[in-house]
Amino acid sequence: MKTSSRPNLHLILTHYPVVSKKGEIIASAVTNLDLHDIARAGRTYGVRSLYIVTPVLDQLELVDKIVSHWISGSGALYNPIRREAMSLIRVQETYASALDDIAAEGCGKPQTIVTSARKQNNSLSMDAFRVMIQDGSPYALVLGTAWGLAADFMDGADHHLEPIVGPTDYNHLSVRSAASIILDRLLGG
Amino acid sequence: MKTSSRPNLHLILTHYPVVSKKGEIIASAVTNLDLHDIARAGRTYGVRSLYIVTPVLDQLELVDKIVSHWISGSGALYNPIRREAMSLIRVQETYASALDDIAAEGCGKPQTIVTSARKQNNSLSMDAFRVMIQDGSPYALVLGTAWGLAADFMDGADHHLEPIVGPTDYNHLSVRSAASIILDRLLGG
Repeated sequence: MKTSSRPNLHLILTHYPVVSKKGEIIASAVTNLDLHDIARAGRTYGVRSLYIVTPVLDQLELVDKIVSHWISGSGALYNPIRREAMSLIRVQETYASALDDIAAEGCGKPQTIVTSARKQNNSLSMDAFRVMIQDGSPYALVLGTAWGLAADFMDGADHHLEPIVGPTDYNHLSVRSAASIILDRLLGG
Repeated sequence: MKTSSRPNLHLILTHYPVVSKKGEIIASAVTNLDLHDIARAGRTYGVRSLYIVTPVLDQLELVDKIVSHWISGSGALYNPIRREAMSLIRVQETYASALDDIAAEGCGKPQTIVTSARKQNNSLSMDAFRVMIQDGSPYALVLGTAWGLAADFMDGADHHLEPIVGPTDYNHLSVRSAASIILDRLLGG
C-alpha cells in the first residue's frame, strides 16, 4: 500500500443521538460484535480509526475493557490478528470530541458524511465519495446504531451518503453489514 | 424485481466440517448474530434461502428456537421486518441434506461454490460468478465459520470463489462481513 495515497477516512459508530423503534431520541447500548466486525473490516480496507461514541459512562468503560482485553490483555496473546484490528478503536463521549480528536492529528477538522438506509435529497453517491477520499483530507463517516441517526444530527452533516440498495425493496441491513459493504464500495477492488 | 431473472442462489452457513485456530477439524458453535446479519443481507440481495448446517443436535434445536421466535413467536409481532429476513433460514444436519433440500425444489442439484479468505488456484472471480448466477440454475454458496471450511470439503466443491481483498494485506473479515460484501459484489449495484 502506498502511504501517500492512503485515504484519511475515519469511521464513527454512534450510539447517541439515535432513534428508537418508536422514533424517540435515545442512547443505544454498545454491541460487542459491532466493535469486532467493524474494526476488522476497517483494518482490511485501511481506515485510520474507528470511533465508538457514547455519552453513557458505563458503556464507555465497557468498550475500554473490551478493547484493552484485545490490545494488551490475554486477548492480544490469544489472537494477535484481532489485536491489530481492535487497535483502530478510540472511545469518545460526543461526536464533537471525536472530530476534535481527528483534527488533532494535524490535517484539520474532517468533513462529516452521514449514512442512512433511507434515500435523502442531494445524497452523495458512493462513486463520488470514492473519488473524494483520494484527496488525503480527513473524512468522518458516521454510522448509526438502533433505528438510525437522529434527524437533527443528519441535518448538520456535510454530506448524506446514498443508501445501499440491493435488487429487492428490502433494505434492513445490520450496521455491521452496511459498514462492510460501504467500505468495499469505497475502497475495495 | 422480475422473478424470471431472479438468481437461484442459496447461502449455506457451515459449522461442520470447519477448522479450529489450531487447524483441527471441529463443529463450531452457532452465533446468534450470524443468523440475523446474514438473513438480513440475504433478504436484501434476494437470495432464495439461508441454510444453517450443524450436526450438533442441541445447536440445531437452538437455531430452531431462535428462528421460531422471529417467525411465529413474539419476535414476529415485535419486528415483522426481521421476520421477513429470518424466514429465509432452513436448518440441516449435513451439507448433503441441504443440497437434497435445494434439489427438491425442482431445479436439480446446485453447484457448490466455496469461499475462503485464502487465495486458491483456479479460483472463480466475483465477476464470473455474477454472470453465472443469472442463468437461473441453482447455486449453493458455502460460508465457513471458525477458522474456515475444512480442506477436504473445499476440495469437493465445483468452484472456489476468489477471496475478498481490500487495499491492505489484512484480510480477516467476520463471516457476517464477508457474506455481506460477497452478496453486494454478486447482486448489488
